[in-house]
Amino acid sequence: MTVVRALRRALPDESILYLGDTARVPYGNKSPATVLSYARQITNYLIKLDAKLIVVACNTASALALETLQGEFPLPIVGVIGPGVEAALNVTRNKHVGIIGTLATIRSNAYQNQLRVADPELLIKANPCPLFVPLVEEGWLEGPIVEAVAREYLAEMNASSIDTLILGCTHYPLLKPVLQSVVKPGTTLVDSADAIVGKIKNILDTENLSATSGTTGTFSCMVTDLPVQFEAIATRFLGTSAPTVTQVQL
Amino acid sequence: MTVVRALRRALPDESILYLGDTARVPYGNKSPATVLSYARQITNYLIKLDAKLIVVACNTASALALETLQGEFPLPIVGVIGPGVEAALNVTRNKHVGIIGTLATIRSNAYQNQLRVADPELLIKANPCPLFVPLVEEGWLEGPIVEAVAREYLAEMNASSIDTLILGCTHYPLLKPVLQSVVKPGTTLVDSADAIVGKIKNILDTENLSATSGTTGTFSCMVTDLPVQFEAIATRFLGTSAPTVTQVQL
Repeated sequence: MTVVRALRRALPDESILYLGDTARVPYGNKSPATVLSYARQITNYLIKLDAKLIVVACNTASALALETLQGEFPLPIVGVIGPGVEAALNVTRNKHVGIIGTLATIRSNAYQNQLRVADPELLIKANPCPLFVPLVEEGWLEGPIVEAVAREYLAEMNASSIDTLILGCTHYPLLKPVLQSVVKPGTTLVDSADAIVGKIKNILDTENLSATSGTTGTFSCMVTDLPVQFEAIATRFLGTSAPTVTQVQL
Repeated sequence: MTVVRALRRALPDESILYLGDTARVPYGNKSPATVLSYARQITNYLIKLDAKLIVVACNTASALALETLQGEFPLPIVGVIGPGVEAALNVTRNKHVGIIGTLATIRSNAYQNQLRVADPELLIKANPCPLFVPLVEEGWLEGPIVEAVAREYLAEMNASSIDTLILGCTHYPLLKPVLQSVVKPGTTLVDSADAIVGKIKNILDTENLSATSGTTGTFSCMVTDLPVQFEAIATRFLGTSAPTVTQVQL
């Protein structure tokens, strides 16, 4: 949803098919094989709906499934990790970069590997923060509890020399104010939702896939569990009134 | 796993087939239809493995699926809610009872309805505590953060007149020391994992299903996602060295 928000702002002509696998979230504690099989189902479903480009707008799925999906399907598929890595490289001055994410994302080493390939001399620190997603889903985005959790999770980051911290989970941008107040002064937070928009624009241009300028993009919101709860969450993420949400079977 | 622990202690002759749907947990935020379809798959799987009695050892699944399962399958199926209700009725002196559980369990009104049927004059208070399960899974069972979360969730309970609090989720017994320190003095915590053992014993006796006394029950531990992470969690719950865990496909 943080990616949707960024995309709708930057590319208002494009229509968006959003599919949230709410029946089986969170992905962050699942194994690579399970996440890959779910990501495959979702990709097939979106292709049947005539998607021209797929955004894997989840760091866990990007970390565990992106390369396989790109090899198996014949359309452009973009993950959030590459853009996050690029943005971090542009931001860091001392070449010391931190990453926070789900257990599955951090364990996959996807960020660590891509950062190292881009610049073998980077100093990299990575920490999982498993409670951040449930905190966001609960709507506890500020206050002493989320601050205490953030201080606990970021203690090692703050004791290190990093000057850049990648928010390696699409839920984390909603905690930005708290995270910014807890990290040590001078630390820049990198939000891959912002970073991915440039990449998508680029692919749409290069591959002649852009919508006719001046058309108004539609926004279809689909979930795999009952829509009721999701509408509240969608409102929290999008910051506007929730779209109509329909339930689909994968 | 808290139910397994109680069962193994009380009924050492009985063999246990444990199936944890780790690929799709947590159930606590899912819809009734989704939980029911998952519970059906698991019941079918356990019957194929020759189960003689099924324990729905999850409050959410008990709340949302038990009655349907009992109507559809020809063997005894026991949930955790009935025994928890009975235990609470035995414990309360002022007939003011509180329940905490997942969002799905509290919303289902399963506890509230069964308590009211048992005693229409009960005063009942129910509150969801969605962060308790992630906290237990993260292994944060004590300390200032879990205490602060518990104080937040239990504030209304403590402001009320309840003298009995049902732990309506099989994860919560692991938070018992914290919960006991946060509830107001004189509040009795009811753990349905203990309550269910008597009920199972009863059914096994009545239906002539008990294992031959003196045999040693086996314990098979199956999960739907990769076993690695589960072994750590199983150790936390069972308090002994983890059993061998195998992955199965439903």
